[in-house]
Amino acid sequence: MKVAVVGGTGDFGRALAKRLSAAGDDVVLGSRDAERAQAAAEELGVEGGPNQEVVRGSDLVVLAVAAGAAVQTAKSLARAIGATPLLSVASELRFGDGDVRPGSEGASVAEQVAEVVPGPVAAGLHSLAASTLGGSRAPDEDALVCGDDAVAKELSLQLASRVVAGRALDSGPLANARALEGLTAVIVSLNRRYKGHAGVRITGLA
Amino acid sequence: MKVAVVGGTGDFGRALAKRLSAAGDDVVLGSRDAERAQAAAEELGVEGGPNQEVVRGSDLVVLAVAAGAAVQTAKSLARAIGATPLLSVASELRFGDGDVRPGSEGASVAEQVAEVVPGPVAAGLHSLAASTLGGSRAPDEDALVCGDDAVAKELSLQLASRVVAGRALDSGPLANARALEGLTAVIVSLNRRYKGHAGVRITGLA
Repeated sequence: MKVAVVGGTGDFGRALAKRLSAAGDDVVLGSRDAERAQAAAEELGVEGGPNQEVVRGSDLVVLAVAAGAAVQTAKSLARAIGATPLLSVASELRFGDGDVRPGSEGASVAEQVAEVVPGPVAAGLHSLAASTLGGSRAPDEDALVCGDDAVAKELSLQLASRVVAGRALDSGPLANARALEGLTAVIVSLNRRYKGHAGVRITGLA
Repeated sequence: MKVAVVGGTGDFGRALAKRLSAAGDDVVLGSRDAERAQAAAEELGVEGGPNQEVVRGSDLVVLAVAAGAAVQTAKSLARAIGATPLLSVASELRFGDGDVRPGSEGASVAEQVAEVVPGPVAAGLHSLAASTLGGSRAPDEDALVCGDDAVAKELSLQLASRVVAGRALDSGPLANARALEGLTAVIVSLNRRYKGHAGVRITGLA
């Protein structure tokens, strides 16, 4: 599968690109800045280029920019992305009072992104941290993916299954992105409280 | 600990009361209907009575009514509950189009409940199903609890630690109830998709 990682020079984007490349995927790393994309891509041994270019001809676009930039970036790339399925991985967080909580009430980042791109959108991988994803072995965690479009969800599940040692699990409609994104605040809270690198395993499934 | 389970005649309330009683807690089962409370309580070998009465003198009130009735029930019991800490376990779900998604956008059930009772509120246990909680052994899952008040959270974590084989984990501020409640929609989606009884285990903590 040819995967374009938009915002691929960030910690999460680089960790994902590294893992996918090791799994045999054809990864193209994108950035607003072509030179930065090239530098990061060379380091990982993958292709790189401006976001506008890398999304063309890919099978799946992973939108890996920070949550605050996700909708604007998706909007600016809408024409280049066209009908290509997109996987939204960002979670909005609010930091304050010594704690971490989900971002603004209302629609999830993924649902907002789905409003501005013409193609189908899935959401997932929110419970994976860049630090564990970028480690020497695939994280011993499950990856949760949701979406309303069968093709976008299936491609995203395929991608997810190649980056975790656990399972890629179909977690229902895109509306559940609200829960998956919110879970990141829970995970960051757990990391702070218990000084760890929390991830999720789902029990009780056959 | 003396625990009052409001709405204790429902599936979740009975399963929780059974588990807590087996763990040595002093459980009082409440219902709007005193006779129904008595009947369910006798079956479980615990005390029972009207909601208004069972909450008095308890160390922790578990609000185990259905999500749609949670805020109204809490409001009607506000005076009787007084300053007693409360644990909110309900999740609002929307069923439709063959799928399950979180309830209305905006504040969580727990945050809404916190607006109408004078005492402190914690939220948790959302990822536990009545069927697994009421089984012969404590579920092999972790229980996630959040809250802004230290005492309500600590009592809720103590309770949670006695009903699961896994850990009771402090999952941050009450705002994270939005994520924990939403997670129920993910879990029900997983159960439908994979025909299981999904629960959560957090990996990566010491």
